[in-house]
Amino acid sequence: MPGLRIVLVEPKEEGNVGAVARAMRNFDVTDLMLVNPCGLGNEARKRAMHGRDVLEAAKSVPRLATAVQGTDLIVGTSGVDTESEKRFARIAITPRDLATRIAAMQGRVALVFGREDFGLSDEELQICDLLVTIPASRSYPILNISHAVAVVLSELFAAGVSTGGPREASGLEKETLHTAFADLLEATDYPLHKRGRTKVMFRRLLGRAVPSKWEFHALMGVLQRATKRIRRLEGHR
Amino acid sequence: MPGLRIVLVEPKEEGNVGAVARAMRNFDVTDLMLVNPCGLGNEARKRAMHGRDVLEAAKSVPRLATAVQGTDLIVGTSGVDTESEKRFARIAITPRDLATRIAAMQGRVALVFGREDFGLSDEELQICDLLVTIPASRSYPILNISHAVAVVLSELFAAGVSTGGPREASGLEKETLHTAFADLLEATDYPLHKRGRTKVMFRRLLGRAVPSKWEFHALMGVLQRATKRIRRLEGHR
Repeated sequence: MPGLRIVLVEPKEEGNVGAVARAMRNFDVTDLMLVNPCGLGNEARKRAMHGRDVLEAAKSVPRLATAVQGTDLIVGTSGVDTESEKRFARIAITPRDLATRIAAMQGRVALVFGREDFGLSDEELQICDLLVTIPASRSYPILNISHAVAVVLSELFAAGVSTGGPREASGLEKETLHTAFADLLEATDYPLHKRGRTKVMFRRLLGRAVPSKWEFHALMGVLQRATKRIRRLEGHR
Repeated sequence: MPGLRIVLVEPKEEGNVGAVARAMRNFDVTDLMLVNPCGLGNEARKRAMHGRDVLEAAKSVPRLATAVQGTDLIVGTSGVDTESEKRFARIAITPRDLATRIAAMQGRVALVFGREDFGLSDEELQICDLLVTIPASRSYPILNISHAVAVVLSELFAAGVSTGGPREASGLEKETLHTAFADLLEATDYPLHKRGRTKVMFRRLLGRAVPSKWEFHALMGVLQRATKRIRRLEGHR
């Protein structure tokens, strides 16, 4: 199992933050990061119950990018399912799929939960390597944020212990691969207005695949080779 | 799937009852029975959110035996795991096991949740046909009652309903993509002795990612574009 960090983006109700801390303690997760949170007082402490230490050790930062520093996989959560495949950034897997995919990971995984009302912004979603949605009622799919944390953590907890698979690629290797993909789009004069969503498509795809270190290097080799070939041939023109 | 009834035994915090009503609405369950509950006021209504109708339709009765009338299977929940087999009444299964066992049932199932502090009494447990425990931390296994409801209902919901996500790419589309990948290896003079394993790497990666139809076409576009660019530039040499 990887180490888990819970990130709450701009929580507005302190009671929810306390309830999240309790749910974390229930599933042996202690690393809590808050992005620009509401004030935390008595109600948060009361709801935290035996998770009060988790609440008190939580760090507050101004932006999501800071909150996920040092993690190897960034998992966004969303209660909104998409009808349109074109809304590529929102194609999501279930908590159970997530458990299966990361069970053998060794690194650190950030689970990012959005605002009570607006969830995560498109900009925030684009930072995420993959997206999880809890299957729920079509008529009212939006869970309370602490319920969402409890459901996701209970799935991960139930999935249990590491089987020690191949080491997954680190955050740094991932970014190098995404740079290589961007370079190839550039080298092929890929239409500018489609580049953003195509890069996000690639990020989601790899996020779901959770590639090993070796797979990252092999894929990077193919992409870099194509880019270099194009650049070299252009030099010959 | 069977019909589900949620039974709360002597809840003490009205906020919890409201949060349970919301979680029920999130998973399309509406039948709520309260055994000798606390008073229900503004806090309960506030926490119920769009589950307020569930809260308002809840029935209060004085005893558990009355609350489970008309159900075909009575499932108790407990956060306390037993060490002793002798305490037969507390031997429990997981929510996932429960989902498997009742998925094909046609009748009515009562899910019984106990008091915030004492859970269910031995007498109440003996009414139950089976007992469910949510796997959780050894040091703090007691979930908030609304969290427990959300976790159990999400397992049952996930077991019963198709997710109907974006259409998965067909076999034919997949093979076209693998051909595009092979063409790019060819165009870049990728070392012959490494081609076989690199193609397998790409197949495994996509197999795990289970790309949507749209993602396949986007990725194929990138690969074909790179190959065409190389071929065209080679024509210019």
